[in-house]
Amino acid sequence: MAPVRSYTILGPGAVGLLYGARLQAAGHRVHWVARSGADEMRRHGIRVTSQDGDIEIAADDLAVSSDPADAPASDVVVVALKTTANDHLADLVGPVARDGAAVAMFQNGLGVEERLRAAVPHAGPVLGAMCFVCAHRHGAGVCEHLDYGAVTVGHLDDRPDAAEAAAALVDDLERSGTAATLVPDLGVARWRKLVWNVPFNGLSVVLDASTDALLGDPSTRRLVTELMDEVIEASAAVGSGVDPAFRDQMLDTTDAMTPYAPSMKLDHDAGRAMEIEAIYDAPLAAAAAGGASMPKTAALRDQLRFLDGRDRPSAHG
Amino acid sequence: MAPVRSYTILGPGAVGLLYGARLQAAGHRVHWVARSGADEMRRHGIRVTSQDGDIEIAADDLAVSSDPADAPASDVVVVALKTTANDHLADLVGPVARDGAAVAMFQNGLGVEERLRAAVPHAGPVLGAMCFVCAHRHGAGVCEHLDYGAVTVGHLDDRPDAAEAAAALVDDLERSGTAATLVPDLGVARWRKLVWNVPFNGLSVVLDASTDALLGDPSTRRLVTELMDEVIEASAAVGSGVDPAFRDQMLDTTDAMTPYAPSMKLDHDAGRAMEIEAIYDAPLAAAAAGGASMPKTAALRDQLRFLDGRDRPSAHG
Repeated sequence: MAPVRSYTILGPGAVGLLYGARLQAAGHRVHWVARSGADEMRRHGIRVTSQDGDIEIAADDLAVSSDPADAPASDVVVVALKTTANDHLADLVGPVARDGAAVAMFQNGLGVEERLRAAVPHAGPVLGAMCFVCAHRHGAGVCEHLDYGAVTVGHLDDRPDAAEAAAALVDDLERSGTAATLVPDLGVARWRKLVWNVPFNGLSVVLDASTDALLGDPSTRRLVTELMDEVIEASAAVGSGVDPAFRDQMLDTTDAMTPYAPSMKLDHDAGRAMEIEAIYDAPLAAAAAGGASMPKTAALRDQLRFLDGRDRPSAHG
Repeated sequence: MAPVRSYTILGPGAVGLLYGARLQAAGHRVHWVARSGADEMRRHGIRVTSQDGDIEIAADDLAVSSDPADAPASDVVVVALKTTANDHLADLVGPVARDGAAVAMFQNGLGVEERLRAAVPHAGPVLGAMCFVCAHRHGAGVCEHLDYGAVTVGHLDDRPDAAEAAAALVDDLERSGTAATLVPDLGVARWRKLVWNVPFNGLSVVLDASTDALLGDPSTRRLVTELMDEVIEASAAVGSGVDPAFRDQMLDTTDAMTPYAPSMKLDHDAGRAMEIEAIYDAPLAAAAAGGASMPKTAALRDQLRFLDGRDRPSAHG
């Protein structure tokens, strides 16, 4: 028997719902924190549709808070919030990360574990979880899992308890039906995820296109490839070198993928903030500090900032 | 008295109409070649509205052919066609450029004079005319001149007759109310024009934005500036060095400009082909041959190619 542990899932978007529901279905104690949609989840429970097996969690089996302060202590806090909420990590994660709980950042981008550590100094081991998954949320508690789903897990601190916490999370994910891998270097893992996120998130927004359209046109296929190369070269410059062969692996994976609208495109189409800071600004700043140039990434970032400023003017004063 | 000369205006778009009407109003013999809209021009004449003075040319005073072969010989052939028609320069200009007529390329982009020379070897002096002008065509024979209008004229060949033909064109333009300047180096003049065209044409299409919006947002203002810098650095690498101070001059000019949708945006919005080859491919190829890198320009070109392929799929088979 695997040990039963307790999880708090912060942010039941597509990622939080998919992995949290699997953990709960596998027998772990899961508490959900939903700042919006908590009432709806309490009424209707959770439903995940997936080619890997649907999951239904009845309303009676669901523990949901709308306020993080109401969540009980747990072994692991899964932060599946959008990074656009990361200015509020102290308020959102602070009350939940009690008694040395591990905090696992199921987020995109770079530097999110460092931000968590700074915002919540009392947190236990800080982990990063990179999800290579196609999934969409359709209203409160409803997740459509489309494709893929593997998670790589790393730890921020070079300490035995952090490595143990990462290994335990990998074990729980694996036993709940998620292909999970423990990675020795969180930085490399973060940059690996950027190899996909940098080209596809931004170009899908700027060109109003899904992954298959971007790869089906020779010009944007070249541009995607060059953006991936910029990320890989920058990763080497900052000492988190991604294997250059990973580029073709990501191209092959995406070619084989169900045509997909990345999360940034869904966010933009819905008028929500885009994760420009975590996916673009942070890597660009790190690359610049490491002496690497990412001109095409920077151009794409500037285009996204323009669109964000025009389409959500209130957010910019 | 200034000498009266004869002009053939090929392609009565906004540029052809504005400068051709001024030349005709100044007393030159002008023959118009309009592949479409010739009948409408024959019925209604030409009307140019402008803060510099409106021009009306009555239908009775207008000589219009729809077939270039029907145009009489003239001293100067003004090629004001879109560069997207340049695959057909031999057919379009060949019959008109008779008896050593000078051919003046009133077009955007790079390499258009060389293409004309190759397509029409019997042409006389080949000139380039760079128009810094905001103008739109509203149907056959109708031009709205919005702002600016200066023209710089250079010559392709380093021969006395070419320099004389360029000087004569400048003189005719000046006397017809156009601020015109003879430039010693056609290459420098072509790259100077690209300093504006490369950022504003492409970004206006990709971001669906006019010049004021692009300069009003700090991110795209930076991107515009960096694209201008790429053009200026490439111009130096190919031996057609533009004064780096020209960048700020172009920014100032555009800040002071009536908010403007560049011609590429109008072309794209109307479902017409965009001048990607002349404004992007040709400079990128020249820069690469000169050892210069234009990564942001290349990224923008790839985005434009994607949009062109999606929105005009028939043009791509």
